[in-house]
Amino acid sequence: MLLEQINRPADLKRLSLTELEELAGEIRQFLIEKLSVTGGHLAPNLGVVELTIALHTMFHSPYDKLIFDVGHQAYVHKILTGRKDKFDTLRKYKGLCGFIKRSESEHDVWEAGHSSTSLSAAMGMAMARDLKGEHNKVVAIIGDGALTGGMALEAMNHIGHEKKNITVILNDNEMSIAPNVGALHNYLSKIRSDRHYLKAKEEVEFLLKKIPAIGGTLAKTAEKLKDSLKYFVLNGVWFEELGFTYIGPVDGHNLQVLMDTLKQAEKVAGPVLIHIVTTKGKGYKPAENDSHTWHGLGPYKMESGQVLKSSGPPMYTQVFGDTLIELAEKDSRVVAVTPAMPGGSGLMKFAKQFPNRMIDVGIAEQHAATLCAGLASEGLKPVFAVYSTFLQRAYDQVVHDICRPKLNVTFAIDRAGFVGPDGETHQGVYDISFLRTIPNMVLMMPKDEKELRDMMQTALEYNDGPIAYRYPRINGTGASIDEGPKAIPLGTWETVREGQYAAVLAVGPMVQVAEEAAAQLAQEGIELRVVNARFIKPLDESYLLQLAKESIPVITMEEGSIQGGFGSAVLEFYAEKRIVGGQVEVMGIQDYFVEHGSVTEQREEVGLTAHHLITEVKKLVPRKVLRAKA
Amino acid sequence: MLLEQINRPADLKRLSLTELEELAGEIRQFLIEKLSVTGGHLAPNLGVVELTIALHTMFHSPYDKLIFDVGHQAYVHKILTGRKDKFDTLRKYKGLCGFIKRSESEHDVWEAGHSSTSLSAAMGMAMARDLKGEHNKVVAIIGDGALTGGMALEAMNHIGHEKKNITVILNDNEMSIAPNVGALHNYLSKIRSDRHYLKAKEEVEFLLKKIPAIGGTLAKTAEKLKDSLKYFVLNGVWFEELGFTYIGPVDGHNLQVLMDTLKQAEKVAGPVLIHIVTTKGKGYKPAENDSHTWHGLGPYKMESGQVLKSSGPPMYTQVFGDTLIELAEKDSRVVAVTPAMPGGSGLMKFAKQFPNRMIDVGIAEQHAATLCAGLASEGLKPVFAVYSTFLQRAYDQVVHDICRPKLNVTFAIDRAGFVGPDGETHQGVYDISFLRTIPNMVLMMPKDEKELRDMMQTALEYNDGPIAYRYPRINGTGASIDEGPKAIPLGTWETVREGQYAAVLAVGPMVQVAEEAAAQLAQEGIELRVVNARFIKPLDESYLLQLAKESIPVITMEEGSIQGGFGSAVLEFYAEKRIVGGQVEVMGIQDYFVEHGSVTEQREEVGLTAHHLITEVKKLVPRKVLRAKA
Repeated sequence: MLLEQINRPADLKRLSLTELEELAGEIRQFLIEKLSVTGGHLAPNLGVVELTIALHTMFHSPYDKLIFDVGHQAYVHKILTGRKDKFDTLRKYKGLCGFIKRSESEHDVWEAGHSSTSLSAAMGMAMARDLKGEHNKVVAIIGDGALTGGMALEAMNHIGHEKKNITVILNDNEMSIAPNVGALHNYLSKIRSDRHYLKAKEEVEFLLKKIPAIGGTLAKTAEKLKDSLKYFVLNGVWFEELGFTYIGPVDGHNLQVLMDTLKQAEKVAGPVLIHIVTTKGKGYKPAENDSHTWHGLGPYKMESGQVLKSSGPPMYTQVFGDTLIELAEKDSRVVAVTPAMPGGSGLMKFAKQFPNRMIDVGIAEQHAATLCAGLASEGLKPVFAVYSTFLQRAYDQVVHDICRPKLNVTFAIDRAGFVGPDGETHQGVYDISFLRTIPNMVLMMPKDEKELRDMMQTALEYNDGPIAYRYPRINGTGASIDEGPKAIPLGTWETVREGQYAAVLAVGPMVQVAEEAAAQLAQEGIELRVVNARFIKPLDESYLLQLAKESIPVITMEEGSIQGGFGSAVLEFYAEKRIVGGQVEVMGIQDYFVEHGSVTEQREEVGLTAHHLITEVKKLVPRKVLRAKA
Repeated sequence: MLLEQINRPADLKRLSLTELEELAGEIRQFLIEKLSVTGGHLAPNLGVVELTIALHTMFHSPYDKLIFDVGHQAYVHKILTGRKDKFDTLRKYKGLCGFIKRSESEHDVWEAGHSSTSLSAAMGMAMARDLKGEHNKVVAIIGDGALTGGMALEAMNHIGHEKKNITVILNDNEMSIAPNVGALHNYLSKIRSDRHYLKAKEEVEFLLKKIPAIGGTLAKTAEKLKDSLKYFVLNGVWFEELGFTYIGPVDGHNLQVLMDTLKQAEKVAGPVLIHIVTTKGKGYKPAENDSHTWHGLGPYKMESGQVLKSSGPPMYTQVFGDTLIELAEKDSRVVAVTPAMPGGSGLMKFAKQFPNRMIDVGIAEQHAATLCAGLASEGLKPVFAVYSTFLQRAYDQVVHDICRPKLNVTFAIDRAGFVGPDGETHQGVYDISFLRTIPNMVLMMPKDEKELRDMMQTALEYNDGPIAYRYPRINGTGASIDEGPKAIPLGTWETVREGQYAAVLAVGPMVQVAEEAAAQLAQEGIELRVVNARFIKPLDESYLLQLAKESIPVITMEEGSIQGGFGSAVLEFYAEKRIVGGQVEVMGIQDYFVEHGSVTEQREEVGLTAHHLITEVKKLVPRKVLRAKA
């Protein structure tokens, strides 16, 4: 096994081309085996085996900076930089991170879980290099999907203008996570299919010579015509006009060609864009045939490629997707908008049934949000299906384009709370803090999948501005979802279990956790009231005032940041009402980034479990201390 | 006066070309006169007089949708849609908004103060139109600066792909707010200078016919060559490749040409981009000569063009700019990054002195933030100078690219708090809520300009992650700034005035307001303690515990959203420490968008004045109620 001898990039430089090719095969086998147990982003990594080998052979990491956009395609990089022995712990608690991580290796110079950041990072590193008078290379590796993210385009505009020495590897696999959309994608396809024209350069020059020599006013035009030939011989004029030297398209699975191209690029001054074409899932048939499923997944059977499915009630995501079809059937104003996540958001069936009402904008959260504003301004009811962590990208658009003009946009916020193995870059734990503080926003979270359906109906019937429901990346509770959804009165909570010792105001899945705790406490004679705080904004003010009258101690519990979260809203309310003297305990996520692991491990780490709640309840001294004051 | 007869767009359709041209002159005069008293965005509006007349003559607003990107270039639109009589109240409290506002007129179909949103809005409206089976036109008017904002590029990628009927007017004034930067800008310049080649189309065809007819393998190449001619006759290939039909460049001050072009564009199926060239400040020499100063400004003398300056201590912005030069002289790691606001951020002198360390990325806040992360990852100390309201655009980058990997980026947040006449789209009142809830962030606000300098030094010396200081869009207090800046110990507050009746924890300019109130209360024998809560995060925990021990009632006061703000942080802290029974009053901005007016009027409206504070203090019942518990 050659792979056994590779512990650092320098080890690659001793291998011959044939050996490197052999190594590529071993790495593929390694990935297919290891990920069959741990799960992970198989297809993207199979696509970049040769590319990553070529990069680490030709450059000198970490002196040269290799910047992977969205670190989920960096497994090969991890293997080549001394971390292959840790792959059994991939994406597991305290194990190897599924993305690039600076604390893991000196070779991880840039970390990212969100896409489209690599070009900005590369520009920063190149500018720092030049200011410090150093000479290292800066290389960004970005997919065709990530390239259409606004910030990547902003960076290209800047890089092309400043003419910094940066190499951009555009990894075009004709597919990001979902099939790619967008005009740039069409453009790349055209380039790929035009490949054979490259050889025609000499023929063109021969033809041009046939034009008779001329003088006078026509001379200038003839010259310009010859000049325009660059549009003919250079495929990447779109990139050239932005100030890049375009090289490509290049076969991304041919090591020799890749290394030759990298060498060629080194001679060019200023920014270079190398367009390489790869196949997602390369070398593993199941993944090549269905790179969508194999983008990122759980364990599978290596031989058959059978993906192992988890059992249990349907995921919230699925209930969302199915219910949206019901709503769309009833109401023609409903349209769905997704930023490149039709599958992840459970919208594949919807897309099939309502192709005209399914809008996939590509990786472009900012545009997606404001597009929803435009749709709503003309009377439609757009549903922006987005992961909590990616909604962060559209924060300003939510404030400025949706909440300020109070437009009827519905936010379906998936992956709210802990996301498990994707870890700290993807945790959906800030949206309560950043959404509830925007005027005009309504924010809900259901205790189970039935209530999610009811909230979707609530949002459909609501016509007084933006409204959001957030739901977790877990299975539902098994609640019956046979009945048609019914709207919930705005700003009302629900008493799930009676009790006088203390009341826990639980948000979303914390309701179930609180019920568990209450059942255990009941055995000790402690009666804990469990309240389903399904509206995070507006609060159920009369419920809160009632609690104050009862002088019952309150615990708030949410799978979100304590800072500025739901508990904080409760504190603000009591302060505003001048209700002093009460005990309000806030349970949530402390002020740090929680790393990868299972959701169970993550909840355990921050103390969001039944046994933690029990401990908190026992700490309380139930007293008649809350006093309502006018 | 023709202008007197124009009360709605339909009135334009009765005028001859000569009369429309005359009207353009009258509108210019009207703007120059009115704005000399009220102030406002003069230069941008003088640049679009003919364009706006042409649009309202050729289209049928509001059936056809005219979408102005960044509404500050919509004054002419306001004049033509029945609002000319309200121009004396422009940007004043309860007066005419300086931007587009849906509640003002049915012709205001899209409102925006932030740039680059118009294309997404247009796409939403066009999709809604098509889904509803209607046939109105959708027209977006966007400047060359705004076009480089990431979300505009995301929208172009989507529009070009979907081939919707949308007309994009690219208003190229070779200058956004600051001189434009970016590769796209270079590209547009090239097109402008290439203008004469357009006429060569026939000549080219003539030349091509000279190529002898050929067969065999060469035929395909010859065909392709002729095809490639589009790159020759069409200047806007960059836009064409994105799926747009490009028309231009067109003289934006020639009404006849503009109207002919709009007519021509109507015949084209799919998205059209019309590139018009205008002069900012057109028709008013002082503004033509210095469109930077005249972009947006206060009152001026109409005849001389002399800008009236406000007196008083220097603005915080100026102190920031001057002090950054001092820091940069001492420390070569300091670089400044601005998203197209070098002037507004007080960095013109810095740019002159340190051209290599001044990075203007254009309107591209997301890229700017992550660029800072890249610079910091290589050991530099980037200072991201950005307005509070525009930092919203980079929220995800702050979370994901800066705070998560804990990089040493300094945020210089200008226009924090109320911004006065720019109003609700520009209020800097959310940054406390959205920044203090991100792990690893340090957030400060100075009570005066001297302390701003000290905070800048603090940030320079801090090397444990991101750190931010925010400052308002007002004059300083007149504090002496002669001494060199000194770092402030992290997380420490300052007692500005002693008192035992109650303590006000004031943030930034609220310290001065609290001092006024305290002085007045003292005359009535009420001794109010005034605390300069200069660290919003981390809080001065020992100070807060001391207050609890003293059982002194607390009022927090900040020019920011109550929801999730500084006061909320204080409540969270006491809840966490299980300190119950205390009175904490939170003063700040209630949960709605505060409109334009003076900062004084805005503070009065939300109750952030000395007299409001006095009322609050008198409502308190000072009692020994705060009790510290372990």
